Amino acid sequence: MSTSFETWRDRFERLRAHKAFELTVIAIIVVSALLIGAKTYEETTRFQQWLLAMDVAVTVFFLVEILIRMAAEKRLRDFFRKGWNVFDFLIVTASLIPLDDSEMVLLARLLRIFRVLRLVSMIPELRMLMGALIKSIPRMGYVVLLMFIIFYIYAALGSFLFAEVDEFLWGNISTAMLTLFRVATFEDWTDVMYATQELYAWSWVYYLSFIFLTAFIFLNMMIGIVLDVMQKESIQMEIESGEGEAAELHGLRHDVRQLRDQLDRMEAALVAGRGDIKVDRSDED
Amino acid sequence: MSTSFETWRDRFERLRAHKAFELTVIAIIVVSALLIGAKTYEETTRFQQWLLAMDVAVTVFFLVEILIRMAAEKRLRDFFRKGWNVFDFLIVTASLIPLDDSEMVLLARLLRIFRVLRLVSMIPELRMLMGALIKSIPRMGYVVLLMFIIFYIYAALGSFLFAEVDEFLWGNISTAMLTLFRVATFEDWTDVMYATQELYAWSWVYYLSFIFLTAFIFLNMMIGIVLDVMQKESIQMEIESGEGEAAELHGLRHDVRQLRDQLDRMEAALVAGRGDIKVDRSDED
Amino acid sequence: MSTSFETWRDRFERLRAHKAFELTVIAIIVVSALLIGAKTYEETTRFQQWLLAMDVAVTVFFLVEILIRMAAEKRLRDFFRKGWNVFDFLIVTASLIPLDDSEMVLLARLLRIFRVLRLVSMIPELRMLMGALIKSIPRMGYVVLLMFIIFYIYAALGSFLFAEVDEFLWGNISTAMLTLFRVATFEDWTDVMYATQELYAWSWVYYLSFIFLTAFIFLNMMIGIVLDVMQKESIQMEIESGEGEAAELHGLRHDVRQLRDQLDRMEAALVAGRGDIKVDRSDED
Amino acid sequence: MSTSFETWRDRFERLRAHKAFELTVIAIIVVSALLIGAKTYEETTRFQQWLLAMDVAVTVFFLVEILIRMAAEKRLRDFFRKGWNVFDFLIVTASLIPLDDSEMVLLARLLRIFRVLRLVSMIPELRMLMGALIKSIPRMGYVVLLMFIIFYIYAALGSFLFAEVDEFLWGNISTAMLTLFRVATFEDWTDVMYATQELYAWSWVYYLSFIFLTAFIFLNMMIGIVLDVMQKESIQMEIESGEGEAAELHGLRHDVRQLRDQLDRMEAALVAGRGDIKVDRSDED
Repeated sequence: MSTSFETWRDRFERLRAHKAFELTVIAIIVVSALLIGAKTYEETTRFQQWLLAMDVAVTVFFLVEILIRMAAEKRLRDFFRKGWNVFDFLIVTASLIPLDDSEMVLLARLLRIFRVLRLVSMIPELRMLMGALIKSIPRMGYVVLLMFIIFYIYAALGSFLFAEVDEFLWGNISTAMLTLFRVATFEDWTDVMYATQELYAWSWVYYLSFIFLTAFIFLNMMIGIVLDVMQKESIQMEIESGEGEAAELHGLRHDVRQLRDQLDRMEAALVAGRGDIKVDRSDED
Repeated sequence: MSTSFETWRDRFERLRAHKAFELTVIAIIVVSALLIGAKTYEETTRFQQWLLAMDVAVTVFFLVEILIRMAAEKRLRDFFRKGWNVFDFLIVTASLIPLDDSEMVLLARLLRIFRVLRLVSMIPELRMLMGALIKSIPRMGYVVLLMFIIFYIYAALGSFLFAEVDEFLWGNISTAMLTLFRVATFEDWTDVMYATQELYAWSWVYYLSFIFLTAFIFLNMMIGIVLDVMQKESIQMEIESGEGEAAELHGLRHDVRQLRDQLDRMEAALVAGRGDIKVDRSDED
Repeated sequence: MSTSFETWRDRFERLRAHKAFELTVIAIIVVSALLIGAKTYEETTRFQQWLLAMDVAVTVFFLVEILIRMAAEKRLRDFFRKGWNVFDFLIVTASLIPLDDSEMVLLARLLRIFRVLRLVSMIPELRMLMGALIKSIPRMGYVVLLMFIIFYIYAALGSFLFAEVDEFLWGNISTAMLTLFRVATFEDWTDVMYATQELYAWSWVYYLSFIFLTAFIFLNMMIGIVLDVMQKESIQMEIESGEGEAAELHGLRHDVRQLRDQLDRMEAALVAGRGDIKVDRSDED
Repeated sequence: MSTSFETWRDRFERLRAHKAFELTVIAIIVVSALLIGAKTYEETTRFQQWLLAMDVAVTVFFLVEILIRMAAEKRLRDFFRKGWNVFDFLIVTASLIPLDDSEMVLLARLLRIFRVLRLVSMIPELRMLMGALIKSIPRMGYVVLLMFIIFYIYAALGSFLFAEVDEFLWGNISTAMLTLFRVATFEDWTDVMYATQELYAWSWVYYLSFIFLTAFIFLNMMIGIVLDVMQKESIQMEIESGEGEAAELHGLRHDVRQLRDQLDRMEAALVAGRGDIKVDRSDED
């Protein structure tokens, strides 16, 4: 590496670490998000022209910003080691793909929407929040699997029994699962039930058992998560708050041991005084 | 029992305990579930043929699998002692019942749906989750009874008062209870209320008091369960986390008792030195 | 009081305390509840006859049962001191009121529905549950007042602004409050909003601010209650679980004090041996 | 300041601090609130006349009441230092603005509605509750920002993709956000989905991912708040409940130190008795 390059890298590193730089990037992201939002309104041609110019400016700015951050790293590999850098890199490169074709213009626009997600990678508090959210996913894994099995069984039952009542709602197992999700959100679930009840009067059993089962599992899952998180927090706290008392107890034990040492000396003094007395100390320590 | 049979049983036992065997069974259950799902789509005759063959294969496989597990046990009685084994046995035998009659074919299909539940008995984490769910049922018993009494009284009132407004919703006490469950899920409850308000202007009192009462009891129940579970967890944790401190305290007490033993010896030495001093130790221990 | 009366009272008291008597009363209440439910179905004249007979029998039984319980008390005043006795008395006397007039027959029926509530007074677990529910009411008092103020202000605003849009929903402040309760339960709230948005495009601010405000207060209330209850439970538990450790600490302190007593004796022995050594013990104890 | 003015200020101060004065103000606020409510009903001209008179009376009363409270303060600046006083001042002055113009009469009425909020500033418990609510806002700040980003991205996607399906629901990014809020409240969300599914069969992915994402973040936020508040409460409690045990431990340590002092004296006595025995005490203390 030449010295001039290293000087440049140092400059980049200082620039990247600068608060003003970060704030500028956040501002640009917000403007970029507003631009995306503005595109959804009916635009006059002049405004459209201005938007296009801004869009190119934002794209170039993001490209330069990510190149600066890459150059700021000692090695390029270090840049891709951080999950958030990969995240940013993907968003920036996605918006670079030239999609001038009229059919592909929609896809290009969609890819640009995800630029807003860069706000999450820029603001440390949001990054922490996302980290906490991602960490809480595995806790729910097996409950989601159990839920899926219940949805699957009810959907299979529903599509066998009610397909002739309403092909649109119960036609096959996947539409039946969507209908059951609708029932689980209580969205016009009685309309679904009243329709099937005309043919199968007992079908309220199907709906009520499903609602109770899903609500019951959901409730238990929520309680489980609260307790799980709380237990971890609580152990942490116990350790911290317990330290003061543990220290006190430790100090106390130290005092008691000093007492014993003193007594040992005194006993020795007594014994030395009277050689005729035998002391059995084999059971100690 | 002949030796050859015992050799076979050992082989079965090894097979049953094998991880690959369990994974195969899980894979077969998933395929079987997908088959059930696939049946709900419009099928071409060729695909139907293939499905039928697969279905027979799955049924046979499950039969063999359960027979192997039975043979693997020392005594057949041991097999039926575990709740999950009985559960599996019922599911497998139910799918064996020959129901070729066109009318009964639906029932046969329904029985096969429950095969998916075998996933629960195969995956240990799901089995634990189900165990926890079943354990949480009795906690809710009396709250459910109280809820039922409230539903019953409101349903009786509703069917006396509103039956002439809408026979379909308030015709008798059971339909009234279903309507009240609908109100409790907030599903188009205002439509129900607006209809009765035309005849009885004050009927909003009926609906609002019902909603507040059920929401209030439900809220209290949830809080009660959270606290109940938490209390048990907390006691468990106290015991575990308290052990460290208890051990420290116990050790301290041991040290103090050693001190006393030493003092006893020293006192004895002192007394032996001076036979004339009387020591009253009757109040100790 | 004559001796024969006292013998009778003792007999009543024994009867009242008998488990079989309580179970009989519970059975009668359930039958009575089923009768009320049965009345809501279309009845044939014969069944109606039978129901009427049963109804009279139940009324008489309840009257006798409450008279027995009154006689079983030492003084009549003691009977009315318990809230649940007053509760039972009101339900029984209400069903005695002769309402043969065809217009009043509905009211007579309604009064009989509340007999089902006697289940609550008969089953101890339900009585405890009700007690817990009633105790949790005051905690919510001021939050309900705050909620009411918010509903009132929004309802006043709503009826001033939207009365011309929909007289039925926003006609006056009380119907506006009912409409706002509907919005708070998310029941077709968008229909209400879309209607007012045609005249006042900004009216989404009204609905969204209302929804956020009520949801926010409700959430805070729930969290507050959970914490409130938990704190009380936790203090209770601390006291209970702390006892083990406290006992250990107490025992330890007792041991240490015994050590001091022993040392006192030994010191006395030493001093007695050498009268010339002066020991200053004034700073102790 | 003249003495007569100071006498007057003292009188005002006594008046302000008087319980009866506070109760009167609360009563007036409630009457004022009822008047606002009464105005929303169809009024006869006579009643209207009476209402107008009452309204003027209430306005004058509030003006006098706030002037008294201002005069009761030592310095006018002290009055405006309390947030609740500024709050009251704004409400009272707002209702003084003369808006006789028929167009402005609506605004004048709206301003008067906010008088009800004075109940919050008068009742101490409500003031505390409001304080707790305001304090809990910052905790939710970043979660609301994250929610907004998710709504924004989904709204941008929705308005690009579904604008041609339903201009009213997905016309631009702001209506799309309103529609997504509707979906998040489960209000007829299936109607919205079924409409877009006709053009884009896969659009259930859009809705389900949105519902799961928002529900997931909301759940995590709630759990986070509960834990956050609980942790603070718990630390507080630990400190309080820990004091008893800490005191016991402290007393125990004091006892052990007294033992050492006694042993020191005894050792000294022993040594004094036998000058020939050397005791090394350098490692102590």
